Amino acid sequence: MSMGAEFDCLFCKIIQGKVPSAKVYEDEDVFAFLDINPVNPGHTLVVSKKHFINIFDVPEEELKKLIVVVKRLSRSIKEALGADGINIEMNNEKGAGQLINHIHFHIIPRFEGDGLRHWPGKEYQEGEKEEIAQKIREKLEE
Amino acid sequence: MSMGAEFDCLFCKIIQGKVPSAKVYEDEDVFAFLDINPVNPGHTLVVSKKHFINIFDVPEEELKKLIVVVKRLSRSIKEALGADGINIEMNNEKGAGQLINHIHFHIIPRFEGDGLRHWPGKEYQEGEKEEIAQKIREKLEE
Repeated sequence: MSMGAEFDCLFCKIIQGKVPSAKVYEDEDVFAFLDINPVNPGHTLVVSKKHFINIFDVPEEELKKLIVVVKRLSRSIKEALGADGINIEMNNEKGAGQLINHIHFHIIPRFEGDGLRHWPGKEYQEGEKEEIAQKIREKLEE
Repeated sequence: MSMGAEFDCLFCKIIQGKVPSAKVYEDEDVFAFLDINPVNPGHTLVVSKKHFINIFDVPEEELKKLIVVVKRLSRSIKEALGADGINIEMNNEKGAGQLINHIHFHIIPRFEGDGLRHWPGKEYQEGEKEEIAQKIREKLEE
């Protein structure tokens, strides 16, 4: 698998420099740049240079490299923007809002009064929680 | 720092078994259980057994252990719930919606038509993107 060379992948083209970006970080394995339609200013995308699709197909070693860069950038972004907090997000598959099929973490600086709301929580029925936990544990053992 | 022993931390009490939870996974360093107020059924929290507050104070080695478990659980949760996708999230500091000051990843199974919407993107002013990227790069070098 070559670096950032997947045919017709926007993020591969950005990594290769064929599409311009506001780069914030680059090393041998990881590339980070500003989202062009930020939730808040400083919203950054952290991507693997190799073309993996999402959490399901990325090798563990590549994922570890990504999350370490996410941690380092989170502090820099918070300080550079004077943010009050940082959300880290990854959307996996279309049903979860993944728009570009190249693995990427979002780092979103947050500000008091920015008006962004988290999704509301629901209630479980009696016994439902234990049943679901059991199903997940069984899948993990397969 | 002892395992799950931070005074008055809800997640430390859950790890210690002093507060009940629907556990989905446990190893030497990592614990995972269902969120009691799930965005969708199967919404899981993945926490370090040691008490770290968030992305800013967690050591890189602990963070790597967490993200590997997040990856493994993401597949199990998707299959167990028959989900159409998975969101992974971490809220860091109160300004970003962090409610419990013990580092935790959210794994949220998503379903077509579940009605959940991502935050809208904005536009940068001319030159603003390059200026912000420059500030972040400078902070990273400090």
